[in-house]
Amino acid sequence: MAKEQGVTPQSQDFSEWYIDVIQKAELVDYGPVRGTMVMRPYGYALWENLQRELDRMIKETGHQNAYFPLFIPMSFLQKEAEHVEGFAPELAVVTHAGGEELEEPLAVRPTSETVIGYMWSKWIGSWRDLPVLMNQWANVVRWEKRPRPFLRTTEFLWQEGHTAHATREEAEEETRRMLGVYAKLARDYAAIPVWEGMKTEKEKFAGAVYTTTIEAMMRDGKALQAGTSHFLGQNFARAFEITFQDQDLEEKYVWTTSWGLSTRMIGAIIMAHGDDQGLILPPKLAPVQVVIVPIYRKNTREVVLEAARALAREIRRAGVRVHTDDRDQYSPGYKFNEWELKGVPLRIEIGPRDVEAGHAVLKSRLGGEKEFIGLRDLPGLLPERLEAFHRALYERALAFREAGVRRVDDYDAFKAQVEQGFAAAFHCGEAACEKAIQEETKATTRLIPFDFPDEEGVCVRCGKPSAYGKRVLFAKAY
Amino acid sequence: MAKEQGVTPQSQDFSEWYIDVIQKAELVDYGPVRGTMVMRPYGYALWENLQRELDRMIKETGHQNAYFPLFIPMSFLQKEAEHVEGFAPELAVVTHAGGEELEEPLAVRPTSETVIGYMWSKWIGSWRDLPVLMNQWANVVRWEKRPRPFLRTTEFLWQEGHTAHATREEAEEETRRMLGVYAKLARDYAAIPVWEGMKTEKEKFAGAVYTTTIEAMMRDGKALQAGTSHFLGQNFARAFEITFQDQDLEEKYVWTTSWGLSTRMIGAIIMAHGDDQGLILPPKLAPVQVVIVPIYRKNTREVVLEAARALAREIRRAGVRVHTDDRDQYSPGYKFNEWELKGVPLRIEIGPRDVEAGHAVLKSRLGGEKEFIGLRDLPGLLPERLEAFHRALYERALAFREAGVRRVDDYDAFKAQVEQGFAAAFHCGEAACEKAIQEETKATTRLIPFDFPDEEGVCVRCGKPSAYGKRVLFAKAY
Ligand SMILES: [Zn+2]
Ligand SMILES: [Zn+2]
Repeated sequence: MAKEQGVTPQSQDFSEWYIDVIQKAELVDYGPVRGTMVMRPYGYALWENLQRELDRMIKETGHQNAYFPLFIPMSFLQKEAEHVEGFAPELAVVTHAGGEELEEPLAVRPTSETVIGYMWSKWIGSWRDLPVLMNQWANVVRWEKRPRPFLRTTEFLWQEGHTAHATREEAEEETRRMLGVYAKLARDYAAIPVWEGMKTEKEKFAGAVYTTTIEAMMRDGKALQAGTSHFLGQNFARAFEITFQDQDLEEKYVWTTSWGLSTRMIGAIIMAHGDDQGLILPPKLAPVQVVIVPIYRKNTREVVLEAARALAREIRRAGVRVHTDDRDQYSPGYKFNEWELKGVPLRIEIGPRDVEAGHAVLKSRLGGEKEFIGLRDLPGLLPERLEAFHRALYERALAFREAGVRRVDDYDAFKAQVEQGFAAAFHCGEAACEKAIQEETKATTRLIPFDFPDEEGVCVRCGKPSAYGKRVLFAKAY
Repeated sequence: MAKEQGVTPQSQDFSEWYIDVIQKAELVDYGPVRGTMVMRPYGYALWENLQRELDRMIKETGHQNAYFPLFIPMSFLQKEAEHVEGFAPELAVVTHAGGEELEEPLAVRPTSETVIGYMWSKWIGSWRDLPVLMNQWANVVRWEKRPRPFLRTTEFLWQEGHTAHATREEAEEETRRMLGVYAKLARDYAAIPVWEGMKTEKEKFAGAVYTTTIEAMMRDGKALQAGTSHFLGQNFARAFEITFQDQDLEEKYVWTTSWGLSTRMIGAIIMAHGDDQGLILPPKLAPVQVVIVPIYRKNTREVVLEAARALAREIRRAGVRVHTDDRDQYSPGYKFNEWELKGVPLRIEIGPRDVEAGHAVLKSRLGGEKEFIGLRDLPGLLPERLEAFHRALYERALAFREAGVRRVDDYDAFKAQVEQGFAAAFHCGEAACEKAIQEETKATTRLIPFDFPDEEGVCVRCGKPSAYGKRVLFAKAY
């Protein structure tokens, strides 16, 4: 492998591997301002594919897109006490505009509950206006101390859904429904198994009554929170006076939710699937699903390229995203490495003898033997091969995850387990104890999974009775 | 018409009409920060439709999407002298972030030539890397003195294309190609006839060698610049040291272009087509192309709604965006007014007798008789009716525009003409004379149309020889 293509092995330094891969695969580059990133075309295409699927699911569940302003008066953020406490340290603030100092400084939105709450207080009047089911695709800014591309950047892209309901029940149902949409996106499109569950009080969104989350395991055994859905109760309704006249003619506060999924999901895809050769992209989101590498010399160039292009046309017609790498200046071997680095699921090789024989070679990014397949059959075969690739990728991640989680009831075993994976343990539910665990082990409570069985026990650290009626998942996290 | 639905007539006060329409049709509302707007679901859906078509055309012409940071170091903007002069007065500036004062203040991007130039200087090395054909969909901020929704807002949404080429010729071709894409979007999707041409030196983009533009006539006779494409020469290449090694092994500066189209286009759609009843939306972009208004009383409600919904299903199957207005609390008359205000191209009315007779009533937002059409035939008929609506809307705008432009060779006639429409006149090309015309008449040079015939004459104001070899279009502008 050429030197510029090589990445640090995962086993040697997972963080270095990550930084190598995202840059060498041309997903991102660093922007000039500390903590910002540039999404290059290959990385952005991955985001666009993810965005298209998620946008469709958001609309299918009855939501409409809208767009609210980037700038939020500082006073708005102060209206919900927990909210401002959580976000104030991370704000970027505009103090000057149009050549003058502003009377009131403006926060660059870190999230939009406040400005949306303000608008809703104008728009919502009657029970007939409810539910309000909105979503926006936007950039948000949070000034991160330890930025890392896709995972924590000072600016990132996301969607934020915001809904208002007449009853608590409806809002709680919505909270769960949208978490389910995120879980579906992770499993069925990103090929990532996720746990769904509740955040503890300590880890919830600033301003929420409670937060639900999907959590995934990366290939270094750490956790990544890939999407969250918050039940906000009437906290923002009270802060922004969002009321409606109900059918009983009484004036009531609405119940709200919010839920967000960001470019972090790309970080999850990279770290849940990648290996020492680079990325392995889930076919449903991969910008290039199949790459054709023609193998030729000067005298066979024309005939091979012609066959490769004809094949690409048929593959495209079968609804597959295909790319033909016809760059003369690189060798086939160099190209193999590059497309492996870029995580393209399937590779087709075709040389002059293959053209004569009327077949081509198919190779999977997940390994296995090379296959010779007839040129006529190949295009029609690829959609099911991509489906099979998706399933294999998911099963591989699931097996890895299952091997990486262990039930522990003893603090020493707990400490050892979070060095390599997830620990399922009982906890007393006290924030001080949770904080002590974090200080002593660097692990945090990731979630209380919905599908964990009811079980009683005592706190793995302090021995007090368990607070949640089931085990909690702990891990070091991104 | 119910009072809350009424809009100020265009003839009485066009500006008031505009403000009434955009708010009452629920396209937008004002944000809490001066000059900002909220795009409500109906307005945003219009933008999404426009965005989808333009994005497709941008990709079909070989461009890839990417995303560059919102924050730009102030020092970057200063690297291109004309650029900073043009944009400095409109900048919003972040001075504090993460609880601290920043060492270097950050501009919130007003446009992204500088930050993209900086990244390109890292990415581009060889002639093999060229052309670079990129686009980004983003929000930008320009602190406007006289904000107006869609037309001039402190924050707006747009796409900005940026390309780098090995030769001047290629970059100039690209500049024209993308202007052509904008003209196509305006004509074939927004049903707006536009002139394509050059901006004068005074009106060009700050930092460009020259700017090309599409200009449209609004129904008050004023002009609206709906999209611009800039040939930037080597100005930004020199400012950011964007060089490449050419095939002759020499190190050369690249040639760049940029081109942008924004939510202003929605302002153009509103003002090019609307009437005293409200919006008239071009069918290819309308969020709702056909609205069904069921007409019923309590005892006929079920049978009528059932028929309406069955019809809607068939219409949807025919690929048409249809909405059934089944709100019990409003009368059919109220609904008619509301959907006229919202500019839906075609309306279907269906009552109990229609259900019995197996037909429905079709009515166009452009007027004309009501038609009775059989329920079986209706869905299949609608796509061609929408096509015909598009053509009629375009022809209507074109006829209006042709009536609104006049060749004038005398300054008094010029002054009278720009009170009501566009003046095609000769100009000396001197910035001071152009400025004097603006001060004396409020009209500006809109463009030097590519398709105006070669013609000689003398400046309509100062009598010096014409500078452009053809007439120039002048008008008051948004
Ligand atoms: Zn404890
Ligand atoms: Zn003159």
